[in-house]
Amino acid sequence: MTAAVPTSTSSLADLAPGSVLWAQVQDLFAEYVECLDDDELERWPELFTETCLYQVIARENHDRGLPLAAILCESRGMLEDRVVAVRETSMYAPRYLAHVVGQARVRPGPDGAVAARAAYTVFRTLVEEETRVFNCGRYLAVVDTGGDRLRFRELRCVFDSTLIPNSIVSPI
Amino acid sequence: MTAAVPTSTSSLADLAPGSVLWAQVQDLFAEYVECLDDDELERWPELFTETCLYQVIARENHDRGLPLAAILCESRGMLEDRVVAVRETSMYAPRYLAHVVGQARVRPGPDGAVAARAAYTVFRTLVEEETRVFNCGRYLAVVDTGGDRLRFRELRCVFDSTLIPNSIVSPI
Amino acid sequence: MTAAVPTSTSSLADLAPGSVLWAQVQDLFAEYVECLDDDELERWPELFTETCLYQVIARENHDRGLPLAAILCESRGMLEDRVVAVRETSMYAPRYLAHVVGQARVRPGPDGAVAARAAYTVFRTLVEEETRVFNCGRYLAVVDTGGDRLRFRELRCVFDSTLIPNSIVSPI
Repeated sequence: MTAAVPTSTSSLADLAPGSVLWAQVQDLFAEYVECLDDDELERWPELFTETCLYQVIARENHDRGLPLAAILCESRGMLEDRVVAVRETSMYAPRYLAHVVGQARVRPGPDGAVAARAAYTVFRTLVEEETRVFNCGRYLAVVDTGGDRLRFRELRCVFDSTLIPNSIVSPI
Repeated sequence: MTAAVPTSTSSLADLAPGSVLWAQVQDLFAEYVECLDDDELERWPELFTETCLYQVIARENHDRGLPLAAILCESRGMLEDRVVAVRETSMYAPRYLAHVVGQARVRPGPDGAVAARAAYTVFRTLVEEETRVFNCGRYLAVVDTGGDRLRFRELRCVFDSTLIPNSIVSPI
Repeated sequence: MTAAVPTSTSSLADLAPGSVLWAQVQDLFAEYVECLDDDELERWPELFTETCLYQVIARENHDRGLPLAAILCESRGMLEDRVVAVRETSMYAPRYLAHVVGQARVRPGPDGAVAARAAYTVFRTLVEEETRVFNCGRYLAVVDTGGDRLRFRELRCVFDSTLIPNSIVSPI
């Protein structure tokens, strides 16, 4: 909504800290967090391109090039399915999530896109329990600048934990 | 100190990521954190307008429109009273707080003001204990741009925990 | 890489939120995090000037002016030694670190340099264990703007914990 139409080509200068595109990438992550934490999950797939990659993967697997991921979606439709799954899954205890994301680093990416990297932490609060660190790591993104707004073409959530995250239902 | 005099009207373009006003809002939250964590509590009320709303409220109550809040102040004077209370309260164990705030989303707000939303986490360290997540959630703010600097007209700290936060003495 | 050559003089306006220098300082912290968390430790000393101060110190000692610090390096060479130490130390259990840093406040510093302050948290994940808050506090930095890129002339990591951090091996 607040994002102006970006140009489809991006040079190093266009991406430098303080540039509009740099700030728009920061805002894209902030909007991502807002969708996930403020119960606006239905808006979340709109932040991705039609064909996309959304992956939640252990750092161990990512670093070794192993494909096994906790979540893998390859289109906006699959992201929408994930939203339905979250909304209709009632087998898990009610909880709140809060994402805190650090400043993103922004670089030229493949095919005129923008590469971005940001640290993240997800805090989970179960009813009547203390808030805990649920998941943390880094977002590795490829951001598409060709449309009417910035969108994730790829978003890899590479988390540090080596425990099997069977409780990951909502997006990270 | 570093904030230039902002204009009192704000259009969508004025607020876009990368604009001066957008950056000033990010800095307002950073200054808020600095006051609370670096023992400059007396500067904290200056970040609010004379008449204001400062509310620390559970997400459960906020979402249902219930007014019950852990902290409620409706003027800068009440904020100053809160500071005195913190300074003079010696019944609680010494502790350090550290606030980490994510990137703020910035939108047009009511009456020419600016609306902002940011994720936050407060970490508490008691003497000889491990650092713990004390409180986390989102800041929902209305920021006044009409004065000599940006100020909070409203700041709601909507936290995720469902436990009764009887230990909230300092501002969140 | 993305940082343009900054000027060596800095006025208040040059540092104001939304300025290029302000954004470059935010990015310097983001690059610092990237080096530490994404196994690019060898790049980390390059973020400091040849003669520098890197200090990891308890808030209690910092506030009282006591010099006792968990880590103290006074040149880039000492930082490089630290990197070697981290790489060659195999006595500690494998772990991942994730740094989340809040927005930096930026002010004029000594001798034409820039002073910056940002909140930080370090999360540590040991194999087969839950992610925990390892260390949190504030970065107090003096940033040199005279070279081909921004560099830390001083970086003090002032942490809140009163426990003796004998497990601090990697930089904070």
